[in-house]
Amino acid sequence: MTFQAVSVLAIPLDFNSSHLTGSAAAPPVIQEVLHNGSANLSSECGVDIGKDTRLQDAGMLDWPDQASAFNCIEQRAAAIRHSGHKLLSLGGDHSITYPLIRGLQTNKNPLTILHFDAHPDLYDELLGNRHSHACPFARIMEEQLADRLIQVGIRTLNDHQRQQAERFGVEVHEMRHWKGVPALDIKGPVYISIDLDALDPAFAPGVSHHEPGGLAVRDILSILQQLDAPVIGADIVEYNPSRDINGMTAMVCAKLYKELAALLLRDCQKS
Amino acid sequence: MTFQAVSVLAIPLDFNSSHLTGSAAAPPVIQEVLHNGSANLSSECGVDIGKDTRLQDAGMLDWPDQASAFNCIEQRAAAIRHSGHKLLSLGGDHSITYPLIRGLQTNKNPLTILHFDAHPDLYDELLGNRHSHACPFARIMEEQLADRLIQVGIRTLNDHQRQQAERFGVEVHEMRHWKGVPALDIKGPVYISIDLDALDPAFAPGVSHHEPGGLAVRDILSILQQLDAPVIGADIVEYNPSRDINGMTAMVCAKLYKELAALLLRDCQKS
Amino acid sequence: MTFQAVSVLAIPLDFNSSHLTGSAAAPPVIQEVLHNGSANLSSECGVDIGKDTRLQDAGMLDWPDQASAFNCIEQRAAAIRHSGHKLLSLGGDHSITYPLIRGLQTNKNPLTILHFDAHPDLYDELLGNRHSHACPFARIMEEQLADRLIQVGIRTLNDHQRQQAERFGVEVHEMRHWKGVPALDIKGPVYISIDLDALDPAFAPGVSHHEPGGLAVRDILSILQQLDAPVIGADIVEYNPSRDINGMTAMVCAKLYKELAALLLRDCQKS
Amino acid sequence: MTFQAVSVLAIPLDFNSSHLTGSAAAPPVIQEVLHNGSANLSSECGVDIGKDTRLQDAGMLDWPDQASAFNCIEQRAAAIRHSGHKLLSLGGDHSITYPLIRGLQTNKNPLTILHFDAHPDLYDELLGNRHSHACPFARIMEEQLADRLIQVGIRTLNDHQRQQAERFGVEVHEMRHWKGVPALDIKGPVYISIDLDALDPAFAPGVSHHEPGGLAVRDILSILQQLDAPVIGADIVEYNPSRDINGMTAMVCAKLYKELAALLLRDCQKS
Amino acid sequence: MTFQAVSVLAIPLDFNSSHLTGSAAAPPVIQEVLHNGSANLSSECGVDIGKDTRLQDAGMLDWPDQASAFNCIEQRAAAIRHSGHKLLSLGGDHSITYPLIRGLQTNKNPLTILHFDAHPDLYDELLGNRHSHACPFARIMEEQLADRLIQVGIRTLNDHQRQQAERFGVEVHEMRHWKGVPALDIKGPVYISIDLDALDPAFAPGVSHHEPGGLAVRDILSILQQLDAPVIGADIVEYNPSRDINGMTAMVCAKLYKELAALLLRDCQKS
Amino acid sequence: MTFQAVSVLAIPLDFNSSHLTGSAAAPPVIQEVLHNGSANLSSECGVDIGKDTRLQDAGMLDWPDQASAFNCIEQRAAAIRHSGHKLLSLGGDHSITYPLIRGLQTNKNPLTILHFDAHPDLYDELLGNRHSHACPFARIMEEQLADRLIQVGIRTLNDHQRQQAERFGVEVHEMRHWKGVPALDIKGPVYISIDLDALDPAFAPGVSHHEPGGLAVRDILSILQQLDAPVIGADIVEYNPSRDINGMTAMVCAKLYKELAALLLRDCQKS
Repeated sequence: MTFQAVSVLAIPLDFNSSHLTGSAAAPPVIQEVLHNGSANLSSECGVDIGKDTRLQDAGMLDWPDQASAFNCIEQRAAAIRHSGHKLLSLGGDHSITYPLIRGLQTNKNPLTILHFDAHPDLYDELLGNRHSHACPFARIMEEQLADRLIQVGIRTLNDHQRQQAERFGVEVHEMRHWKGVPALDIKGPVYISIDLDALDPAFAPGVSHHEPGGLAVRDILSILQQLDAPVIGADIVEYNPSRDINGMTAMVCAKLYKELAALLLRDCQKS
Repeated sequence: MTFQAVSVLAIPLDFNSSHLTGSAAAPPVIQEVLHNGSANLSSECGVDIGKDTRLQDAGMLDWPDQASAFNCIEQRAAAIRHSGHKLLSLGGDHSITYPLIRGLQTNKNPLTILHFDAHPDLYDELLGNRHSHACPFARIMEEQLADRLIQVGIRTLNDHQRQQAERFGVEVHEMRHWKGVPALDIKGPVYISIDLDALDPAFAPGVSHHEPGGLAVRDILSILQQLDAPVIGADIVEYNPSRDINGMTAMVCAKLYKELAALLLRDCQKS
Repeated sequence: MTFQAVSVLAIPLDFNSSHLTGSAAAPPVIQEVLHNGSANLSSECGVDIGKDTRLQDAGMLDWPDQASAFNCIEQRAAAIRHSGHKLLSLGGDHSITYPLIRGLQTNKNPLTILHFDAHPDLYDELLGNRHSHACPFARIMEEQLADRLIQVGIRTLNDHQRQQAERFGVEVHEMRHWKGVPALDIKGPVYISIDLDALDPAFAPGVSHHEPGGLAVRDILSILQQLDAPVIGADIVEYNPSRDINGMTAMVCAKLYKELAALLLRDCQKS
Repeated sequence: MTFQAVSVLAIPLDFNSSHLTGSAAAPPVIQEVLHNGSANLSSECGVDIGKDTRLQDAGMLDWPDQASAFNCIEQRAAAIRHSGHKLLSLGGDHSITYPLIRGLQTNKNPLTILHFDAHPDLYDELLGNRHSHACPFARIMEEQLADRLIQVGIRTLNDHQRQQAERFGVEVHEMRHWKGVPALDIKGPVYISIDLDALDPAFAPGVSHHEPGGLAVRDILSILQQLDAPVIGADIVEYNPSRDINGMTAMVCAKLYKELAALLLRDCQKS
Repeated sequence: MTFQAVSVLAIPLDFNSSHLTGSAAAPPVIQEVLHNGSANLSSECGVDIGKDTRLQDAGMLDWPDQASAFNCIEQRAAAIRHSGHKLLSLGGDHSITYPLIRGLQTNKNPLTILHFDAHPDLYDELLGNRHSHACPFARIMEEQLADRLIQVGIRTLNDHQRQQAERFGVEVHEMRHWKGVPALDIKGPVYISIDLDALDPAFAPGVSHHEPGGLAVRDILSILQQLDAPVIGADIVEYNPSRDINGMTAMVCAKLYKELAALLLRDCQKS
Repeated sequence: MTFQAVSVLAIPLDFNSSHLTGSAAAPPVIQEVLHNGSANLSSECGVDIGKDTRLQDAGMLDWPDQASAFNCIEQRAAAIRHSGHKLLSLGGDHSITYPLIRGLQTNKNPLTILHFDAHPDLYDELLGNRHSHACPFARIMEEQLADRLIQVGIRTLNDHQRQQAERFGVEVHEMRHWKGVPALDIKGPVYISIDLDALDPAFAPGVSHHEPGGLAVRDILSILQQLDAPVIGADIVEYNPSRDINGMTAMVCAKLYKELAALLLRDCQKS
């Protein structure tokens, strides 16, 4: 499939968070520090996202009530896909990745998900909520919406989640086995999901769950830059502005945003 | 004029800031801490804004380009007024108060503006920009959009602004004359504009301009609670999330939001 | 009744907190900053708590399981009282005040409670927990353990709590009516309960619930220093070290500790 | 005596600090935030210190070794005085006030010292050091370098210092008796010494000794603005940049600097 | 020797700190963030320390006066060892490792100490104190309480300490030679001592001595996880809550605690 | 050429900063934390800079007006060189490196510049200022003041700067190609310029431009320690104290200062 552009969609949803809310407010804070004059708008490989008209703002998603939020997300993702656009989603807790993938995967095309996180998010349910931000990849894998799920940064596997990972054939790159940036052999279309807490809290204090022993910002950037498979969508989730200090974590999101945008634009047709 | 409801409008505009941007990102951060379970939704006088259906979310304003932003703000404010709603505006730098007042004052009805700020914002222009966040009240008074302008918290008057204040007959309550909450004799319809930096930076670190020697949160609350004139609109501006620490200033905005909402709802007709 | 000494008891309990835990860890952090050499150990009226041997460390309370914690607190408080000591309790969430008062009031002597807080803590139950940190004064007043309950700093009354306050005849000094330190006419024996969030978050960021518009540290100190009734016990609750910045709120606790200790020692018999 | 100008002298000395060093680095940090474009350069009464050529930079004082530092300070202060200039000193720990006053008072003219501080700094010696930052006013009063010493903000008097205060006839305005800005009846020439920790730590976190229950920034400004006696010199001491957060306390110093400069310039002869 | 369980002992001692106190308050803050619901209780290799009944709380150590503190620590450590338990010690400054090792090594069994630190802590004495937190490993090696001392993270060797290291045959892995996690050839029983300032201050701001250029949290975790020798005891020292920001460093301690507990439990007999 | 000593010069200049000022205040804050007793004064390779009399304080540079500042810097650098001293410059924004190099290179001797930075600083001009802190290396290379320019840490190359880098033959080690500390083949005399934002903001929050994905402190130290070519001068620029938190970034500067001083002293003649 060919794509013409990248739609940037803000998703202000955090009601599926188990510990602290806050990630619903992320999108405009990220957009603001991206454009505040502190840095230029070039990605590290030289794509100037300030000039590339194929990067298009799709606004902030809205929904009439919590019960229909997942439907709205799914439908919007599907509409973006059907219009020949890729999706770059900003904000929200990690629960939104499930309806996003459903929307992008209406035909269940082959798909690899590259997932950065401290947590595997494979719980069958948490606190009675099967749509908790701790569960999205259990749902995705149950519905066979992806062929491969590759997780990087994981450092909180307990027995239940380890079993879930085995059951679904998840390729878990645990931090305890980290030996520098791994060579990930990824061929087909890829979706990238970045939970900010994949990073060590030193790099990203503005998250709801501080889990020490995580990745450096550079680790994520290196993996993204080594990817040569086509990327069809991406999300940046779990940034919590009300836990941030002086906008430091917002700037990390802005950096990731620039690099993801450049990656998504790489194989879009020239406009 | 009678009102039926209060429309809460988010205005993500900070391109008229002279020193640091950031206030465009304020609205969702304020909304988030308001609803994160840390506090209940009752105002101090007992209005439960979580239950009052007359308080209505008018979403986040958008505009096609910077040049038309002020027009969009003005027209939206006018539309809200014509629909019989009051306006409560969240976010943005202080430049937005000018188009807001233009929209609400299409008939130039008698109006008192109660303005909390460290700065008088009466510059004729700043850095060549007559729409700078340092200028809105010069524009408002030039166009005679208000009969009275009452300023509280002021502590940065220089010669030019002092002349402007005299020229426009502004009633300036300078901090250097502060002797506790003043008795403000306000009769007619009132618009309230709260710039977060009216507060001392100890209470509101998340602003672009730290100006020590300011108000306590309680000072503003007391003035609001003593007001018995009808309030037709209000704004909370200049909160800068990327300068905040652990969401402290966001929570101040949320507190002001609850009290302003209760004040605005006071004389709306029962639905 | 006469007292010989003051027992300082640490109570590491925060499982009745509704939003965030953390206050269980408060006692040693307070003790540490009190003695770290930054300040001397004299209260403002000149009592040197570093030299007064009547101030005695009663250690940190322990309990076999959560179900028996309240019993342990009550019995320990009773034992301290029966040994002719006053009680000064450090740490914990506000739920502990109920068993503390039960222990001190086994004979239901006349008692006035002077309670500093942002919240009235009069909920009949919260989230199904009748022992929540939002409920202790409902329990105390139901059991008629105090003749008067005087609350200072209150700024979150909703309908339910307002009804509870009326039902129990609580004397609520709401912040919205604050006009400087009030003259409190207190005669009989007094128990003082200080929830750190009575203070504005500017003065005490290290609490679980940021509620702007609160007291200054000096306001609490002034009320304490004007008290001439005998004080039989006191607690400092809801300090949350894991929300603190550079130990600032710990130092506020240490200051309150010194002043409370001096007050409690005032009418203890000379040793 | 008549004065023509005000010399601003930076004094980078903190080796007499008892707990933490850091105040030696204060002067350029204060100067920097004063001029960083966040605020204008007018004092609250309208003196534009950016334009008044009578305010002159005297640079940063230097000395060959610690033993001669006090001599250098004294001589420089004397030289400034003899040249017909007033002195405004920035930075350093509080020990420097003693040699500054010695230099300004070579003729032991009548002098009132208005001293803002949490601590009386009247120790005869501290940790064996008679020049400790806890001792300057003991030295000054012993040598009868001032007729009156008026202290505001004091909240750490212990027995020794209370005796010293009585011995020297110090007029101590303790915080525990604070009832709003006091009317200070000051006639003759005045020297103003501001220790940043006179302020509550909420307003000035960047100090070596956090002592809760202090003044608001506005309290100091009000006292300064009500002063109508001639001011011959002033210092701002004990700001510790390495304890500051985001430059907040530096901005407080900058505000005090502007107001002190305006006060000092008030009765200088027009140039 | 065989072990049945692991005793977790809190040691609130910081009077041997040379620069700042604070580490005495560490234990409950660590315990609190460990259990606050932000993270699960599984170690990275899958040991659920929330369920393993062999991990037992030995409470907080107490002593009658400073002079006897080291004796109390030593005796308690010896008692734990004699009861067939391993020791996991939380809190305190680094001076406590000396009496801990003395207690565990009453028979001077072969022992390797794996020591993470920015500083070698090999001073013969510091500021006249031979029990300073800068000296414990000089004492340990003088008394031949360990066969090997392996230090990781070291970056402050001066001439004296370099001589001491040579004298005692310490195997110092200096940071300046760091080339990724080293292969440490450790056979016999091991004691692990983790000074939080082994970490770079970016990862652990809540320590008394910020020494840049340190380890990442993952570096320590990797070394622990590669260890296959039996571990007989461990300590986590020098966490200073009053220097922490929002509990970030407490969470690092909690992470290390989980991994050390899992390591210690590895070869305890099944209960 | 032979050198006898190292002159440490403070340069308080930040008027060429494009986004935020503040770096002018850096020098004394760095000096203060270096000497505050938290750490010893030995470099990691054992040079005690507290005892080496060849390290000499050259004070803080001053200039009559902004127009002549660059001239003053250049002349002072030249004078230091001609006196047989090396230069170690502290503070300022990056624009100062151009006049420093001009002063040191009056004979255009062969020179390699080793430059650590997030940004290449090769703009032909920025915002109309050819002396902007974004331009120094364009000026240096245009005037052929160096034979080689080696940049490490770069992660913000846009098209213009990439062209400039090619035009000048700059050896850019981009972060996106980072694979651990690179082997830099450097022979001749070297000048080292360290912009603090070469570091990831996790390690150095106190800078004007947060650019995630940067170096660790250890990376810079390793490169410095592997250098065996003679070093003739160095600077540490762009530390902004008014953005720092608790002096953390100041301590990073102090660490770099110690290592650079040791490196510069290495081949100075014994005094």
